Amino acid sequence: MKIDGKPYRTIWLNDDGRTVQIIDQTLLPHEFATVTLGSLEDAAHAIRVMQVRGAPLIGATAAYGLCMALAVDPSDEALEAAAATLLATRPTAVNLRWALDEMVAAVRNLPRGERRAAAYARAAEICDEDVAQCYAIGGYGLELIRAVHGGKGAGEPVNILTHCNAGWLATVDWGTALAPIYRAHDAGIPVHVWVDETRPRNQGAALTAWELGRHGVPHTLIADNVGGHLMQHGKVDLCITGTDRTAANGDVCNKIGTYLKALAASDNDVPFYVALPRSTIDWGIADGVAEIPIEERDAAEVTRLRGRDTAGRVAEFDIAPEGTNAANYAFDVTPARLVTALITERGVCAASREGLLSLYPERADGA
Amino acid sequence: MKIDGKPYRTIWLNDDGRTVQIIDQTLLPHEFATVTLGSLEDAAHAIRVMQVRGAPLIGATAAYGLCMALAVDPSDEALEAAAATLLATRPTAVNLRWALDEMVAAVRNLPRGERRAAAYARAAEICDEDVAQCYAIGGYGLELIRAVHGGKGAGEPVNILTHCNAGWLATVDWGTALAPIYRAHDAGIPVHVWVDETRPRNQGAALTAWELGRHGVPHTLIADNVGGHLMQHGKVDLCITGTDRTAANGDVCNKIGTYLKALAASDNDVPFYVALPRSTIDWGIADGVAEIPIEERDAAEVTRLRGRDTAGRVAEFDIAPEGTNAANYAFDVTPARLVTALITERGVCAASREGLLSLYPERADGA
Repeated sequence: MKIDGKPYRTIWLNDDGRTVQIIDQTLLPHEFATVTLGSLEDAAHAIRVMQVRGAPLIGATAAYGLCMALAVDPSDEALEAAAATLLATRPTAVNLRWALDEMVAAVRNLPRGERRAAAYARAAEICDEDVAQCYAIGGYGLELIRAVHGGKGAGEPVNILTHCNAGWLATVDWGTALAPIYRAHDAGIPVHVWVDETRPRNQGAALTAWELGRHGVPHTLIADNVGGHLMQHGKVDLCITGTDRTAANGDVCNKIGTYLKALAASDNDVPFYVALPRSTIDWGIADGVAEIPIEERDAAEVTRLRGRDTAGRVAEFDIAPEGTNAANYAFDVTPARLVTALITERGVCAASREGLLSLYPERADGA
Repeated sequence: MKIDGKPYRTIWLNDDGRTVQIIDQTLLPHEFATVTLGSLEDAAHAIRVMQVRGAPLIGATAAYGLCMALAVDPSDEALEAAAATLLATRPTAVNLRWALDEMVAAVRNLPRGERRAAAYARAAEICDEDVAQCYAIGGYGLELIRAVHGGKGAGEPVNILTHCNAGWLATVDWGTALAPIYRAHDAGIPVHVWVDETRPRNQGAALTAWELGRHGVPHTLIADNVGGHLMQHGKVDLCITGTDRTAANGDVCNKIGTYLKALAASDNDVPFYVALPRSTIDWGIADGVAEIPIEERDAAEVTRLRGRDTAGRVAEFDIAPEGTNAANYAFDVTPARLVTALITERGVCAASREGLLSLYPERADGA
C-alpha cells in the first residue's frame, strides 16, 4: 500500500541480491525508518523484538532469514540449525513453521551449490503468493462489506471494528483483516473503522491507525474496553480480525482480547469475521481452545510503554507502581461458535472443520 | 486503609473546621500528595479533573463542596447554584445527585445562620455512613470468598478479577468491590487479585495495584484484553466490580469494559458479582442498557498517557499518530442477566427489581 503516495511492501530484497529491507515497526507511529537485515541473526532478532510482526510477515522474514543462512553455509547442518533458530522466535505463529517447511523443502534435495539461488527464488515466491492471497481475501471480504452497505443509506458509512493490526504492515502487502477494508474504500464504499488500541503493545494505536491514516481510510481509535458498548448501541456493522493460528475446527488464535470482542459481537448479533491465508491453518490442532499453547511475553510490556513526550522525543514510560507484578498473555483463542465466517483466499466458509474442508478439500485426508 | 502503616481516609475535614483535605489521585501511583479544597470551585474542580473519583468519594466531595459554598453564602440562591455546579461535574454518578439531595434536605428548612453547621454535620455523617456501608459490603462479600475458598485446597489462593478501581480510594474507606477482598485478606483467607489496568485512564494500574500493594494483598496487573483468556482456562474463581449507577432492573453502569468481562464470566461459568452501596441505585431507571446516558470524555485521554520516564519524572506522552481521531466512552452498561448477584450493605441479592426490593422493601412503592 502507499505511504505518502509511494508504494511499499513491508519486506523487499535489496539490490545486492542478498540482504533484505524491512520497515522497523517498533518505531511506528512516531518515526518511519527501514532496517537492513544482513544475516540469519538479524532476521531472528527482527522477529523476536517485533520489528516485523503479523503471521504472514513473520513467515516472509523467516524465509529470507533462511536464505541468508544458506548464503553463508549451504550445508544440511546449517539449514537445520537456521530453521530451529527461526522457529524458536515466536512459538504461536503457525505459518512461521509453514514458511520454514516450504523453504527447507525447496532446497533439501538440491546440490549445495544450487541451494542459495533456489532459496531466494522460493522466498520471493512466498512474498508474491502472500500479496496475491491477501488481495483475494480482500475481494471476498469486499463483497461482505458491499452487502452490508446495500442495506444502509447511500452516504452512511459501514462501521467495522478491528483488533490489533492485521493490515498491510502485518503481511507483505494489503493485509488480511484490513484487505477487505482497503478494497471497499478503493471501490468507493464509505467505510469507517473502529480501531482497538490493542494493549499491551498498542498495535492498533501505533500501526492500524497509522496505516489507515496514510491510506486515507476514516477511522476512530478506541480503548479495547469500548467495543462492547459500541455493539450494544448499534454502532458496529461488522467485526473483522486476523488470526495467527486457525485450528482445524475453526477456533482462531489471535491477539489477546479478540475473544472478548467476539463475545460482544455474538451477544449483539453483530457479524464477526476472521480473515486468514491458508498458511495460518493448523490442521494438526483439532481443538484450538484446548490445544493451542499461549505465548507469555515479558511483563514489562504491560507496565512500560513507548510514546512521544511533549518535546517530541520517543521514550519509554512506566504506568504502574514500581515493582508491580504483571502477566502478559499475548494471544487468546476465540471458539469457532463465536465466529460468523472465515474469509480466506479461496472464499468465505463456516468456522468449522466442514467449512474449512469445503475450501481445502485436498486436506480431507486429515493430513 | 493504611498507607505504609498509617491509617487514612480519602477525604477529611481539616482542623480549621471549614476546608477539607483529599489525596490527589491524578498523581498516583507515581507520587502521593494531598490537596486542600478551600471552596466550592475547588471541590467541583477536584471532581471534574478526577483528583477524586469513584461514586461514593465523588458524593462525599460534593457534600463538602456544598458546605464550603454555604460557609460563604447560606442563601437559597447560593445553595441552588452550588448544587447545580456540583451536579454538572460528572453526569453519570447517581450518588453525586443523592449526596446533593441529602445535603439540600439537611439545610433547606433551617434558618440561614444554622445552615453551615448543619451542612458540615451532614457531610461528616455521609462520610461515616459510607465507611460503615463499605465495611458491611465487605462482610457479605467475605462470606462469598470464604465459600469459594472452602472448595479449594487449603493453601490455594482464591483468584479474583476486578476492573477499574472500586477500592478504598474510590470511597471514603474500605471500598466497594475491594472491601470483600480486604476483609478476606485480613481474615487470613489467601486471595490473589487480577487487576485490569482499565484503559484509557488506567485506574487499575495506577490505583488498584497501588492500594492493594500498600495493604499487602497479592495481585497481578493485566491488560484489559486478558480476562477472557484467564476465565477460559480456570484462572479466575470470581469477578467483583463496582458500579457507578445501578438501574432498578439490576443493570449496572460501570467503567467502560465491565460488560466485556461480564460476558466472559457468563461464557465460562465464573460468578460475576457487583458491589454497591444503596446510594448507587437509581430507582428512576427501569432499564439500564436503554436509559442510562454514557458520558463521553476528552479523546485526548485515549491518545495521551501519564507515566514516569526513565529519569523518574512524571510526564505526559502520546501513543498514537499525531492528529488521530479517538472516541472516549467512559462507561458501559452490563445487563442484569450477566450479573450473578449484587453485594450491598444490606446483603446479597439477585440483580433484578425483585432482588433489589427484597433488600430495600421501603422502595416497593416504586418511588
